[in-house]
Amino acid sequence: MNPSQLAYAVPAAGALALAYAFWKASWVRAQPAGNEKMQEIALLIKQGAMAFLGREYKVLAIFVAIVAVLLGVTNMSGENQSPLIAAAFVLGAFASGLAGYFGMRIATDANVRTTQAATIGLPQALDVAFSGGAVMGMSVVGLATIGLGGCYIVFSSVFGSDVNGLATNLSVLTGFSMGASSIALFARVGGGIYTKAADVGADLVGKVESGLPEDDPRNPAVIADNVGDNVGDVAGMGADLFESFVGAIVGAMVLAISYAEVGKGNLGPVVLPMLVAAAGILCSIVGTFFVKTREGGNPQVALDTGAFGAAGVMALATFGIAKFLWPEGGAHVVDASGNPGADAILWWQVGVATVVGLATGVAVGMITSYYCSMGKRPVNSIVEQSRTGTATNIIAGLAIGMSSTAWPIIVIATGVLVSNEVAGLYGVAIAALGMLSTTGIQLAVDAYGPIADNAGGIAEMSHQPPHVRERTDKLDAVGNTTAAIGKGFAIGSAAMTALALFAAFMQQAKITSIDLAKPEVMAGCFIGGMLPFLFSSMAMSAVGEAAMDMIVEVRRQFREIPGLLEGTALPDTARCVDISTAAAIKKMVVPGAMAIISPVAFGIVFGAEALGGMLAGCTVSGVLLAIFMSNAGGAWDNAKKSFEGEGYKMPDGQFHKKGSPTHQAAVVGDTVGDPFKDTAGPSLNILVKLMSVVALVIGPLLVKVGPSGLFGLLR
Amino acid sequence: MNPSQLAYAVPAAGALALAYAFWKASWVRAQPAGNEKMQEIALLIKQGAMAFLGREYKVLAIFVAIVAVLLGVTNMSGENQSPLIAAAFVLGAFASGLAGYFGMRIATDANVRTTQAATIGLPQALDVAFSGGAVMGMSVVGLATIGLGGCYIVFSSVFGSDVNGLATNLSVLTGFSMGASSIALFARVGGGIYTKAADVGADLVGKVESGLPEDDPRNPAVIADNVGDNVGDVAGMGADLFESFVGAIVGAMVLAISYAEVGKGNLGPVVLPMLVAAAGILCSIVGTFFVKTREGGNPQVALDTGAFGAAGVMALATFGIAKFLWPEGGAHVVDASGNPGADAILWWQVGVATVVGLATGVAVGMITSYYCSMGKRPVNSIVEQSRTGTATNIIAGLAIGMSSTAWPIIVIATGVLVSNEVAGLYGVAIAALGMLSTTGIQLAVDAYGPIADNAGGIAEMSHQPPHVRERTDKLDAVGNTTAAIGKGFAIGSAAMTALALFAAFMQQAKITSIDLAKPEVMAGCFIGGMLPFLFSSMAMSAVGEAAMDMIVEVRRQFREIPGLLEGTALPDTARCVDISTAAAIKKMVVPGAMAIISPVAFGIVFGAEALGGMLAGCTVSGVLLAIFMSNAGGAWDNAKKSFEGEGYKMPDGQFHKKGSPTHQAAVVGDTVGDPFKDTAGPSLNILVKLMSVVALVIGPLLVKVGPSGLFGLLR
Repeated sequence: MNPSQLAYAVPAAGALALAYAFWKASWVRAQPAGNEKMQEIALLIKQGAMAFLGREYKVLAIFVAIVAVLLGVTNMSGENQSPLIAAAFVLGAFASGLAGYFGMRIATDANVRTTQAATIGLPQALDVAFSGGAVMGMSVVGLATIGLGGCYIVFSSVFGSDVNGLATNLSVLTGFSMGASSIALFARVGGGIYTKAADVGADLVGKVESGLPEDDPRNPAVIADNVGDNVGDVAGMGADLFESFVGAIVGAMVLAISYAEVGKGNLGPVVLPMLVAAAGILCSIVGTFFVKTREGGNPQVALDTGAFGAAGVMALATFGIAKFLWPEGGAHVVDASGNPGADAILWWQVGVATVVGLATGVAVGMITSYYCSMGKRPVNSIVEQSRTGTATNIIAGLAIGMSSTAWPIIVIATGVLVSNEVAGLYGVAIAALGMLSTTGIQLAVDAYGPIADNAGGIAEMSHQPPHVRERTDKLDAVGNTTAAIGKGFAIGSAAMTALALFAAFMQQAKITSIDLAKPEVMAGCFIGGMLPFLFSSMAMSAVGEAAMDMIVEVRRQFREIPGLLEGTALPDTARCVDISTAAAIKKMVVPGAMAIISPVAFGIVFGAEALGGMLAGCTVSGVLLAIFMSNAGGAWDNAKKSFEGEGYKMPDGQFHKKGSPTHQAAVVGDTVGDPFKDTAGPSLNILVKLMSVVALVIGPLLVKVGPSGLFGLLR
Repeated sequence: MNPSQLAYAVPAAGALALAYAFWKASWVRAQPAGNEKMQEIALLIKQGAMAFLGREYKVLAIFVAIVAVLLGVTNMSGENQSPLIAAAFVLGAFASGLAGYFGMRIATDANVRTTQAATIGLPQALDVAFSGGAVMGMSVVGLATIGLGGCYIVFSSVFGSDVNGLATNLSVLTGFSMGASSIALFARVGGGIYTKAADVGADLVGKVESGLPEDDPRNPAVIADNVGDNVGDVAGMGADLFESFVGAIVGAMVLAISYAEVGKGNLGPVVLPMLVAAAGILCSIVGTFFVKTREGGNPQVALDTGAFGAAGVMALATFGIAKFLWPEGGAHVVDASGNPGADAILWWQVGVATVVGLATGVAVGMITSYYCSMGKRPVNSIVEQSRTGTATNIIAGLAIGMSSTAWPIIVIATGVLVSNEVAGLYGVAIAALGMLSTTGIQLAVDAYGPIADNAGGIAEMSHQPPHVRERTDKLDAVGNTTAAIGKGFAIGSAAMTALALFAAFMQQAKITSIDLAKPEVMAGCFIGGMLPFLFSSMAMSAVGEAAMDMIVEVRRQFREIPGLLEGTALPDTARCVDISTAAAIKKMVVPGAMAIISPVAFGIVFGAEALGGMLAGCTVSGVLLAIFMSNAGGAWDNAKKSFEGEGYKMPDGQFHKKGSPTHQAAVVGDTVGDPFKDTAGPSLNILVKLMSVVALVIGPLLVKVGPSGLFGLLR
């Protein structure tokens, strides 16, 4: 079989993933959904979540239509096949949206069934919750590989497999990637605003001011809070990983064009990334069968076995795939003058790059986990500095977040240097893909968290006996290690994918250097570096303002609805759901649009090289801010949690418990951290990639405008 | 007169500045120092400040000795004249330290005399306070020009004025600049930690917990707080501006070497930056005579007239100096192949670059002032979001700080592009110098603030009648516009000077491009971008930890000293002074050392080009973080102040006053902002320049190591 025929395995693996997702979804739906009260609450959550998704997708449809017209009719990309690029863009956006829809539908079915299963036992509850997550995971990787693989096969037959046909084909694929990234940014920002506005509102008034416990049915914002878990942590994260998965594959595929062997018709290096992704699906599916536990067992072990087992097998599989597909005698990068270089990249070096990527991701994950974990020095220092009040808690959290950037950046920089040393820029792209090839099971583990969280909320609101909530809490508490490693993969792969896309952009825009000695490149670097700050600011303000509206509304309900606090009257939960929805939809538009318009405008005015400077600045400051914000938020969160149970033992031997002034200070820190870690932080990973992929798409246009852009023409 | 002879005017202007400073200092000392109680308090402040300076300088002496040995004996710079570079380094450090010593001595004399003068009238108080500030300002510019001009003249006669001699001469001058920058970083960080630890301690326990008014003598931390104003805002700021002034001059001088006309013996472009600085001294001295007011008058007008008048005259003077010194037929930059380029830079273009610099600085200052001013939208939004508590106040402040980076960065990027378009990289350096040439009077205005602040504290502690405190408050409150513009100059000139030093570094390290397409350059950019985060984290943790010690101590004194709160017993102020001093000295070492070691280590391992990437990353993220932190801190500060007087009128028409829960939330925000705006923020401006100047000094060493460093040799 030659590589072109092997490409058919890609959508086939995708179809298998969808079949698996369908099977799991049917199984989840067949589980008992609990008593009437539980179903009533679950319905409120489902309605809220689906209503949000409906309104979000309406806005996104308009956005996608506008960009598609710009790409297809006005030929924004400058590429000859612009209508096809536009079509691929729409397809990428649609596939991402569809994956989010599938995932959230099943998540809102699985939550109440997990509660019901938890009335029976822990293994049963794990099974339902994880199956719900697996549907999301498999929908994402299935739709991504069907979309990408399908496009590749169709356009191979349209344009042929010679160098020019391949180049056109890959240009079209970048459109698919841009569609996926655009939707991801909006979904992450919108979902992040939604969930944190609700969370902050529910916490500050319900818990702090009125002293209600978590998920108390008297709290008007509690349904919105549970809806938020679904729209932020399920749909938002699904779109995020869809984007990462597609971006890593496309980045590596585009870079493969620079190999002399590919130019001579050996498509192995082009097809390899897709086949790695396909193999990752198989490993993920097998991995899911290892996620089982027994009553009294530790679900952590089950999740770790599934996720890490799949990743380990996948690393070995990459060596096999590379051995099979790689050109005999290695691949040679074509240099600026069009001649193949002397150094050959051999098949096993591609496998080593995967291992480098996995090692980078695991290391970043372990470092970030250290900075955010209870009982470790960073979190303890925040806890101890809470003794002197909120101000010192906040200062400590900000300082921890900032210092937590050091090691991950050193590790990522090392990972970039080593994978480049091993297998060139293609190696950097493959390292990124190595972390993401088992997205199917990683996302299953990630999406399982909010389902278990929701299940706990439903248990609380429907007044289940305490052991039910204990079981769901146990489910919710585990998976943290896996989630931390997953976070490391997200950050590490984002930085590496951005660099791969960056290199691919240079190829498309036909520039060979991005020279910081040129003032316009440095100016681009400054402005690009500023964008993540502006973007984060918009996301944070949106949460702050929406949370304020929510707080005002919750306070009003407590004041104006007689009997609410006594439990004799029902809160107006719909109003709170509405506040979060409206704020999220309204506030996601400007930051999302900015991410797409900035590189286009700057590139046209100042040229491709200056745009390269902008992308570099944005990548560096975006990755730094993402690590800073995620870790500060995580550390504040666990600093607050350190007071639970018997309390935190201070250096002087005294125990500070929940409700103490020290704990109150920590609660404020956690609230500040919410938009850090769940809104701005994760969106930044998408921002840096989206900007690079937009630049990649408009590369041919920049060639037409000329090397110094309109500004250069004016001189 | 030829340019070499004109160089004698430089130390002559410096001598004039010192004479003026001496005259003003004698005048201040001759003023009445008030009653016994006032003198007693003033003595405590003076002793605390001088003790701090003594301990700080002891540590710095060790540091300077180590670096001098590395530079001189082990030839760290790789330059042939390394012992002379080491000597210049020591001289730069010594001159900076001496300026700080002069300034603080007189500031601690002027404070109590300002209080005494305020018992008579506002014009008298302004006169004393401003004269005190002028001594600091003139000491800084005087010692800087004597040091730089003197070195230049001596080394001209040693090495001759041909190209090689000149290159050596300028290499030696970079040693002077590195000495100044090193001291500045330590002084800013140490002073910043000192002042904010004392301030946070005094505020949180004294004001918030115990309800004492500002500067109440019963508060044990209040002397430390007043000492902090001197060590942070006088000595720290003096060293900071000494460094900026020297860096801007040296950066422009080094870039002048790239002109073909300079190679042929026309030294005009080399001497021009020093002469601009000398002329700036004259303008500053003249400007000080316009700073006069009458009873009931507005001191603001007086300060603005003096500072802006001097800057305006200076812009015109630059045209004159350039006309006189610039080569006939313009100056031509030598290209990579050693031939002069076709485009000539003409004399008036140099003048235009100055105007561009001033315009950039004023614009950045006005934008930052908008973000930090009471009554404007950003501050009001923080005030209004304080209604829902501390968390939303903090989120709002962080968001405002982040969004406030956008316009200044766009303005700076535009300033860089325009000044480069007008007069090349030399133009960028001249633009930076344009903002700093009247440092003499700008610093006088800046240093006047803490003197007036101290005067108010002494008035309070010595129980003066209310009108005295009112007058000092009036003095303290004005000068804000001037200070805001000064802040803009500091940020704008830091970015532009860093770029000039960056370009000078490329010249010294003999590299012609810094190509982001190379993975090691990108890795450098990542790591360089991370350093300001790590640095800020260290500065903030230091403040947080020292503040906690201070809080614990103040609480202890209130608890254990009987009669303290009733005013019948005296607090142990020396203990608080000691806590701040020890913390500041201990915690300034690591961040300072990091700034010097990182570029050296990274440059040697990965080569000059990768180090260029590191400098770019550090400059971009350092400038961004500096703007973010300064503006967030400033906005929080004024959000808190918005509650003073009759209170803040919320959108619902209700007034929220001092002491309300809304105000309490704003107080916490202000406390978080303290280390942002007064410790980490201003230090970052120095960090980016220090790293560039260190790179500049070791440039010749990197040439010897080879283009890819040790890492490249291993491959």
